[in-house]
Amino acid sequence: MQYNAGIRADACKAGAAMISFETAPERYKHWRLAFEGRLAVLTLDVKEDGGLKPGYELKLNSYDLGVDIELHDALQRIRFEHPEVAAVLLTSGKERVFSAGANIRMLSQASHSEKVNFCKFTNETRNGMEDASRHGGLAFVCAVNGPCAGGGYELALACDWIVMADDGNTSVSLPEVPLLAVLPGTGGLTRLVDKRMVRRDRADFFCTTEEGLKGKRALDWRLVDELVPRSKLGEAARARARTLAAGSSRPAQGKGIRLAPLAPVREGERILYPHLRVSLDRSLRTAELTILGPAAGPPETVAGIHASGAEFWPLALARALDDAILHLRANEPEIGTWVFKSEGDADLVDAMDAALLAHRSDWLVRETTLYLKRVLKRLDVSSRTILTLVEPGSCFCGTLLELVLAADRSYMLAGALAGDNRPPASLRLGEVNFGAYPMPNGLTRLASRFLGEPQALETARARIGEALEAEAAEAAGLVTFAPDEIDWSEEVRLALEERASFSPDALSGMEASLRFAGPETLESKIFGRLSAWQNWIFQRPNATGEAGALKRYGTGQRGEFDKRRV
Amino acid sequence: MQYNAGIRADACKAGAAMISFETAPERYKHWRLAFEGRLAVLTLDVKEDGGLKPGYELKLNSYDLGVDIELHDALQRIRFEHPEVAAVLLTSGKERVFSAGANIRMLSQASHSEKVNFCKFTNETRNGMEDASRHGGLAFVCAVNGPCAGGGYELALACDWIVMADDGNTSVSLPEVPLLAVLPGTGGLTRLVDKRMVRRDRADFFCTTEEGLKGKRALDWRLVDELVPRSKLGEAARARARTLAAGSSRPAQGKGIRLAPLAPVREGERILYPHLRVSLDRSLRTAELTILGPAAGPPETVAGIHASGAEFWPLALARALDDAILHLRANEPEIGTWVFKSEGDADLVDAMDAALLAHRSDWLVRETTLYLKRVLKRLDVSSRTILTLVEPGSCFCGTLLELVLAADRSYMLAGALAGDNRPPASLRLGEVNFGAYPMPNGLTRLASRFLGEPQALETARARIGEALEAEAAEAAGLVTFAPDEIDWSEEVRLALEERASFSPDALSGMEASLRFAGPETLESKIFGRLSAWQNWIFQRPNATGEAGALKRYGTGQRGEFDKRRV
Repeated sequence: MQYNAGIRADACKAGAAMISFETAPERYKHWRLAFEGRLAVLTLDVKEDGGLKPGYELKLNSYDLGVDIELHDALQRIRFEHPEVAAVLLTSGKERVFSAGANIRMLSQASHSEKVNFCKFTNETRNGMEDASRHGGLAFVCAVNGPCAGGGYELALACDWIVMADDGNTSVSLPEVPLLAVLPGTGGLTRLVDKRMVRRDRADFFCTTEEGLKGKRALDWRLVDELVPRSKLGEAARARARTLAAGSSRPAQGKGIRLAPLAPVREGERILYPHLRVSLDRSLRTAELTILGPAAGPPETVAGIHASGAEFWPLALARALDDAILHLRANEPEIGTWVFKSEGDADLVDAMDAALLAHRSDWLVRETTLYLKRVLKRLDVSSRTILTLVEPGSCFCGTLLELVLAADRSYMLAGALAGDNRPPASLRLGEVNFGAYPMPNGLTRLASRFLGEPQALETARARIGEALEAEAAEAAGLVTFAPDEIDWSEEVRLALEERASFSPDALSGMEASLRFAGPETLESKIFGRLSAWQNWIFQRPNATGEAGALKRYGTGQRGEFDKRRV
Repeated sequence: MQYNAGIRADACKAGAAMISFETAPERYKHWRLAFEGRLAVLTLDVKEDGGLKPGYELKLNSYDLGVDIELHDALQRIRFEHPEVAAVLLTSGKERVFSAGANIRMLSQASHSEKVNFCKFTNETRNGMEDASRHGGLAFVCAVNGPCAGGGYELALACDWIVMADDGNTSVSLPEVPLLAVLPGTGGLTRLVDKRMVRRDRADFFCTTEEGLKGKRALDWRLVDELVPRSKLGEAARARARTLAAGSSRPAQGKGIRLAPLAPVREGERILYPHLRVSLDRSLRTAELTILGPAAGPPETVAGIHASGAEFWPLALARALDDAILHLRANEPEIGTWVFKSEGDADLVDAMDAALLAHRSDWLVRETTLYLKRVLKRLDVSSRTILTLVEPGSCFCGTLLELVLAADRSYMLAGALAGDNRPPASLRLGEVNFGAYPMPNGLTRLASRFLGEPQALETARARIGEALEAEAAEAAGLVTFAPDEIDWSEEVRLALEERASFSPDALSGMEASLRFAGPETLESKIFGRLSAWQNWIFQRPNATGEAGALKRYGTGQRGEFDKRRV
């Protein structure tokens, strides 16, 4: 298997290269990853001709998806391979610029779907940084050494602390509205008013001022946290990072594990990972994702888990699922429904969950659980229908039960199909379902599900560990439908066919609305409110039409606008 | 002035009739409003050929904006003219159908902007019902006597109680996704999972099932609150309404006031109300809305306020502002910026606010305050830039200060312009700024503004009543900029010109993101998350393209979809 700037050269379909989300530091083109004791230094130094696709040059540290895939990889490496790291310093390797943000020519060439997927992945990476800071003992400091615009500033906004050079050249800005007629699409607007709590009228002025703000005003308006002379920037940023790192729960003497390449096997319409089998049905436009339960129990000790490394089942599963989700999202847009199944021994899944809980203070176990949380959150914001089938032989228990709870709909077979001697399907609640894996709205999937029936949540808690067959699972509100063998095939087939017949757009809007009952968070606001507006604007002629501002950028002509407000 | 089904016949611009939001019960075509003691009965009986525009027939109690304008008017009449009413019963006058929802042919003919505006107004009316129930002592019961689909069911969802006939003919449904490839656009999805807390997987099934649900399953799934035989429907609904009305804070013996027609005077590009002057500048694409402060203090007694009726300044102002906002939104889409000014005596505004507070337990005073709250909320969700100018002679105090706080940006003149002998502008905080007028996110505008500086909120509270000149107002964080006479004209002119040069769509998305920091509510989720997704879908070819499902509805051909998920 050959990798090339994120494009997998061997995996072409109808001439279009597929995007791979796997990479490794030795293949980075755009980032340098260095270590200084408990500090990791991530230096953005984008290779102009290293774009993921032809047709644009990544000038001024502007970026495309390929740059962000490397950032995502680097963060994963820091988390798993360098547990001694307690703070990350982000900066630019260019002398005169921090980052010009997402590459505009790339954006103007991209299809609607590419733009939306790009923003989503980039958002997820930034949210992951904040999650690492809040729950993983990893602080982020951004050292702004030159103009820091658009997505560049949005990256800074995802950090805990922004230190900026106080010189005439350095500024922060969100020039998307005045310059391109689109929104800052990776959380910038939301983080301004919700995270940094910049006053709304100041945020309004800032977001309509192409050149941005610098120096004292940027500090006074809460756009950055610290101003230092250019010559002291590196020093000040490192000092701040060391301060933030001081109380970190990551182990100064910890030894990392290696994230070996996943190297899934591709056979026609199937992709095989050690614990996940993906199989496409193009006529029904579905992907079946079958989780394979563990073959044995977990190592008995923390040391054993560390020795297993990336082969520890929960971690291997998280990595495989993550890769499969990203692949399907980016490369298989016509596969509109993801059908989850599982096969295996529920007791072993249970044992894995027990190990995660018993050793949760260990950094690797904690990182594994946090990774599972992030992967499950990717499902919540994926614009695909998720349908889970619970059949005999399955092992939807604890962590895997989240795949039932994350589904837009689930079906559980009551009894068995003719000729199948296996015991009827059952599922099991675990302690992990009550806190380990919150959704982007901050609630567990169970709590979101039972907003209207708090007593159902309590009843569920009392049944942890109990094997619930179809009737009981349905009565407990854990599955949508529980047909018996007479109806099973027909009901499932109809559901899949029906789903395939609906407008993909209407389904995306509906699912995004129904999945997030209850409270909203920074994260859910970014994926709900902000992304939805951005999607709208990406469709509007004022931005992406032939005379739109995004389309015309760089031609010397300004965008022409339909002046009507909608 | 002639009214015709909501279209103002005398006000035509470039051939297109303007929409008027004023009507009165004697002119209703589609609703019957009757009174039974403390109960108002609102019966939907849509006149098929009574559409607001030609080209569609309002069959099966389907509705258009004209129907909703009447509903809005009826609710205002009940609130102000019939204080004895404590519960409203909504039902249908057709024997075999409750409502088929928004008229599909109307929707498919409407422009993008018309669709969006229609949904917004309809949403506001439904939110107003819930607000009346929570804060105004008015309960809503919906009696579903036949198929209740789409917007019809969304109307039911806005009520406190839904009682449904248990017969083979009666069902509730949200068929938009399967039938039209759009979303239920007036809060349906949000109210399902957030208000009624229907389980998300059941909501998914329900929203993809064209024919909807009926009988026991609809009840079990929390889609309705009560099932009764068809023959008992009216009786059961009345009984429920009487129960809900029992504890109402509205006065059984109260005497209403009359909401006389507003009859604003139109002179060229000006619209004159008694306390509001609207003036359009088409080249700058702005509307200047100048609030005229009260000419005298408030009546000294509650009886005096009642005697003033609709001429009581706060109420007259609320009505004028409401009408102007609705007019500008519907009829002047190219006017992208609304500039608020005020003229008058701040002491008199203060006195009006004091009267609102002193007599807040009186039903009319309470209704007036609630109306002001609704009008101010319309501003928050209007897709127009709001800019407030605070100049000498202005009276931005208490209630009127909300127009400064609602602005995307405000400018306050420091000192005076040459040749102006008036004292410098000042503004004043009032008690009303700390609770009477929450935004859709549930926070006051001050609290939203100072999320990042809670101490500024406390400081502001300590300065209630103090006249703050520009420097002090800026230091207190109440205005964005405070230029002096040297910069004033230039800075304001530049801001307006710049705003007019930006993409209207990007501004809408940006403003909708920056205005609502902090928590989200049912209401803000409807306007943020749901409406943004709906706007996107209204732009997608799968819905509104030539082969889209909405466009093709009724032709016998199904929509053709681009099957790619975005």
